[in-house]
Amino acid sequence: MRNIKIVSSAKYLPKKKVTAKQMDKMLGVEEGWSLKKTGVEYRHYVDDENSISMGTIVLKEALKKANLEFEQLDALVGTCGTPAQAIPCTASLLQEAMGMQESGVPCFDVNSTCLSFVTAVDMISYAMEAKRYTKVAFVASEVASVGLNFNQKESSALFGDGAVCIIFEYDTTKTSGIIASHMETYSSGAHDAQIRAGGSLRHPVAHKDVKDTDFLFDMNGPKIFKLASKVILPFCEKLFFGTQRKIQDMKLVIPHQASLLSLNLIRKKLNLSQQQYMIHVYNHGNQIAASIPIGIHDAIEMGKIKRGDEFMVLGTSAGFSIGAIIFKF
Amino acid sequence: MRNIKIVSSAKYLPKKKVTAKQMDKMLGVEEGWSLKKTGVEYRHYVDDENSISMGTIVLKEALKKANLEFEQLDALVGTCGTPAQAIPCTASLLQEAMGMQESGVPCFDVNSTCLSFVTAVDMISYAMEAKRYTKVAFVASEVASVGLNFNQKESSALFGDGAVCIIFEYDTTKTSGIIASHMETYSSGAHDAQIRAGGSLRHPVAHKDVKDTDFLFDMNGPKIFKLASKVILPFCEKLFFGTQRKIQDMKLVIPHQASLLSLNLIRKKLNLSQQQYMIHVYNHGNQIAASIPIGIHDAIEMGKIKRGDEFMVLGTSAGFSIGAIIFKF
Repeated sequence: MRNIKIVSSAKYLPKKKVTAKQMDKMLGVEEGWSLKKTGVEYRHYVDDENSISMGTIVLKEALKKANLEFEQLDALVGTCGTPAQAIPCTASLLQEAMGMQESGVPCFDVNSTCLSFVTAVDMISYAMEAKRYTKVAFVASEVASVGLNFNQKESSALFGDGAVCIIFEYDTTKTSGIIASHMETYSSGAHDAQIRAGGSLRHPVAHKDVKDTDFLFDMNGPKIFKLASKVILPFCEKLFFGTQRKIQDMKLVIPHQASLLSLNLIRKKLNLSQQQYMIHVYNHGNQIAASIPIGIHDAIEMGKIKRGDEFMVLGTSAGFSIGAIIFKF
Repeated sequence: MRNIKIVSSAKYLPKKKVTAKQMDKMLGVEEGWSLKKTGVEYRHYVDDENSISMGTIVLKEALKKANLEFEQLDALVGTCGTPAQAIPCTASLLQEAMGMQESGVPCFDVNSTCLSFVTAVDMISYAMEAKRYTKVAFVASEVASVGLNFNQKESSALFGDGAVCIIFEYDTTKTSGIIASHMETYSSGAHDAQIRAGGSLRHPVAHKDVKDTDFLFDMNGPKIFKLASKVILPFCEKLFFGTQRKIQDMKLVIPHQASLLSLNLIRKKLNLSQQQYMIHVYNHGNQIAASIPIGIHDAIEMGKIKRGDEFMVLGTSAGFSIGAIIFKF
């Protein structure tokens, strides 16, 4: 077990609440359509907030709960699926917005789109176990709403904005930690969820044929679901191999939040009870890389996981990647 | 020592060679100006290449040199300072371009702009030391040329395109590895090197006031140099603390490639001889996150470092961050 412990967490949902009824109007569909398709009763969109302002709020709150000053962090890791700017990394911009410009606290981002938080915690846990960094804040702050293509009604109805920070600390008592983790990438799905522009391949100044839609999220939900369904069982087998555990032993499984329908299909495939399976898409939407850590935060707040419990996060992401971590809380 | 060993490396420079004389013409300055300001005699710009095609070339070549198949990699890490697309991560797109869509090899990116390679190797080395991943390919493929603002003549004259792959393997003989590493971020310099758009803060569809120049690199070179000069000596002191070594003991120091003038000023500040200090800006330009690993590749090819030698990479990046690794080759 890599002995890292969740010491605090905080989430923020932006001001603008968009109900399923409002979404139906925005999409020009009949009332009830978006709820039926996605299971999202409401989600929040940024009003006067942005990814940096939201990220700062959750980082401050998580630090306060952990009774830590920013300067006591050994690293700040940005785990957003979508960056604030092309340059520099989001973590640096967060350090600046915290007013901690002179702190020297190392800031960098890890990106595997919706799995960014999972990949980052998975990888950095080894550096924490080796005591290179003993206190690390992971922030996922996502503004999906700016990049939605409302001509793609089903995926537009699914996403929401929000931010979350989880602070981990090396656990000297060796009671909490990561029991196992695993990640796989199948790029046959690389173009089933993408934003084509925003990087060097389609640069709006250098390449004159770049269209507005190149900056918008383009998703083939059914293809991704098919790919996820195909790989998830052998994936979980590898994850649990040698752990003397099976997925049904988990107190809670926190999946990345897809549509309610696909979430439930995956739950059944994994042979998990409703009580074991965290669903928060109905009041958040899919919040890109913030979805899974918001699930962790809410599960703790709601008492669904308690110290000593074993729980698991499991997600898929654009790429296509699948990743998971088994935690002892 | 974290026992990871460089087993192979490959670099690629795109077809279009742009000489200092051609650069002077492009910038509308008198002949000799750009060479005097930057020390760059020539750099390469992409012609029909892009970050993915270049990344694929170097990955293939490095695999071949290491006598490895792609599927034998435990992970592929994208360490570009600028991504290919906003979504998905560059590493996934590389896996796809390799035709290895079904391999399952985990793909993700680490981003600290020009330090991305250094941060990624630093962090992933712990996962390698713990034998989570024993064979890892790191790819930095950069197309700086699409994002240059030619009204900022000095920074435009500095950059070049190119790609590099370095494959590391856990060293069972425990003779090669990382002796020490360190990173610090001072976001007082967060806006001294930036591309404002490309993320959610200035999204060209959601925010109608986004300008073309928001997609271009904006750098205040003198401010960054001042910040680097201020922090570099105390930084190196922390890096070497407890290593029983000093920077002058290094066979070679490979810095991130800034202008020749600032490179030499930093060399003198660090009290290093010309032989100990890798300068390759004159025929490459500053290649963002590819600069340092291209320095490693060239140093190996040129025989400047041999097995058993201790060498160091040291760089600064937009953020502002400073990072370094001391390797035993």
